Amino acid sequence: MDASITDAANLVDQAAKTRRSVRDFSPEPVDLQDVARILRLGTMAPSAWNLQPWRFVIVTDPAAKQVLQGAAYNQRQVGQAPVVAVIYSNMVEALGRVDDVMHPSMPPEAKAAMRGSIEGSFASMTPEQRDQWGKAQGNIALGYLLLLFEVHGYGTSPMLGFDPASVREILNLPDHATIPALLAIGKSASAHPGPPHRLPFEELARFIGDKV
Amino acid sequence: MDASITDAANLVDQAAKTRRSVRDFSPEPVDLQDVARILRLGTMAPSAWNLQPWRFVIVTDPAAKQVLQGAAYNQRQVGQAPVVAVIYSNMVEALGRVDDVMHPSMPPEAKAAMRGSIEGSFASMTPEQRDQWGKAQGNIALGYLLLLFEVHGYGTSPMLGFDPASVREILNLPDHATIPALLAIGKSASAHPGPPHRLPFEELARFIGDKV
Repeated sequence: MDASITDAANLVDQAAKTRRSVRDFSPEPVDLQDVARILRLGTMAPSAWNLQPWRFVIVTDPAAKQVLQGAAYNQRQVGQAPVVAVIYSNMVEALGRVDDVMHPSMPPEAKAAMRGSIEGSFASMTPEQRDQWGKAQGNIALGYLLLLFEVHGYGTSPMLGFDPASVREILNLPDHATIPALLAIGKSASAHPGPPHRLPFEELARFIGDKV
Repeated sequence: MDASITDAANLVDQAAKTRRSVRDFSPEPVDLQDVARILRLGTMAPSAWNLQPWRFVIVTDPAAKQVLQGAAYNQRQVGQAPVVAVIYSNMVEALGRVDDVMHPSMPPEAKAAMRGSIEGSFASMTPEQRDQWGKAQGNIALGYLLLLFEVHGYGTSPMLGFDPASVREILNLPDHATIPALLAIGKSASAHPGPPHRLPFEELARFIGDKV
């Protein structure tokens, strides 16, 4: 790698190492065009069979944010942040778009095989398992987004504490929609609280073969 | 933003836009120290209550990779890639480490409140729901890892097609372990197949308030 790429990669590493969830958002508006551009990059994340079950509601309207905050056990980040992206999974819609998500370069027989593999897999799941599967895929995109926003200088707060039925009702989402997170996006109003606290990697990893 | 940060942002954007899962890995060994360093960065991803339920088995032993490949419906990336990281979630262990994962700066009363909140939440889940929850958290770290490895010039192939019971048995994981993915890591042996195919963002997103 040349030096400029190494430097840039170091800055991405730095973002991963220092990112903290924002507790206090500055109310100043952010560039929604830029935020939407980064959300779009999050949808470049891979998903099994490329199903891309993730969908987004991007909320900037103050009254709507207040209603959402009520459904999120009144966590103030929802009302404070200039943008709240509700990330949800719609597996019924995703499974209706199998033809659209297959890569155009795939030969017809590969497409037919993939269609069969997808149908077979989901036929053996209950609707609840299917919807949980979609939610788990949504978390891959969430991982992308948390890192991307940090690299681009935005603070985020992913919230998992909310009443899903209320959020579905407020946003008019189907009953089968699962919601990985409400993602508050903006700039922090407070100083950085220091590095995150994580378990030592040595306690999380085991090697079979070479060790480091 | 200064130029170096813009470079980092461009690098990570480019990585997100162009990343494709690798189908053919070059058998040449990779720097395991560097791979482990990036896996560690993936554990900097946030998780709800900072529970960090993700655990890793990092497999480089050729015989062990062959056995794993059998449990992964013989997908050849498992045997080919110089490193296979099995990402799993261990919720029993994670819930036994609540005291370890709370930020040292938290006041005792905040720690007690968080402990109560965690216990209350998991008390209302079945063991299966708890383990699925852990698996979903693992996908946040997987999102980090896919993007980080790409930024650092590695190819990856996250595989969700495998027999979980066999993988647990081969790796001696507990029965309650859930496995978001086997992640093959290395360098691609083929030319880049072109950009990934994704649904148009306009079809995935809806705005409440300002629109772009």
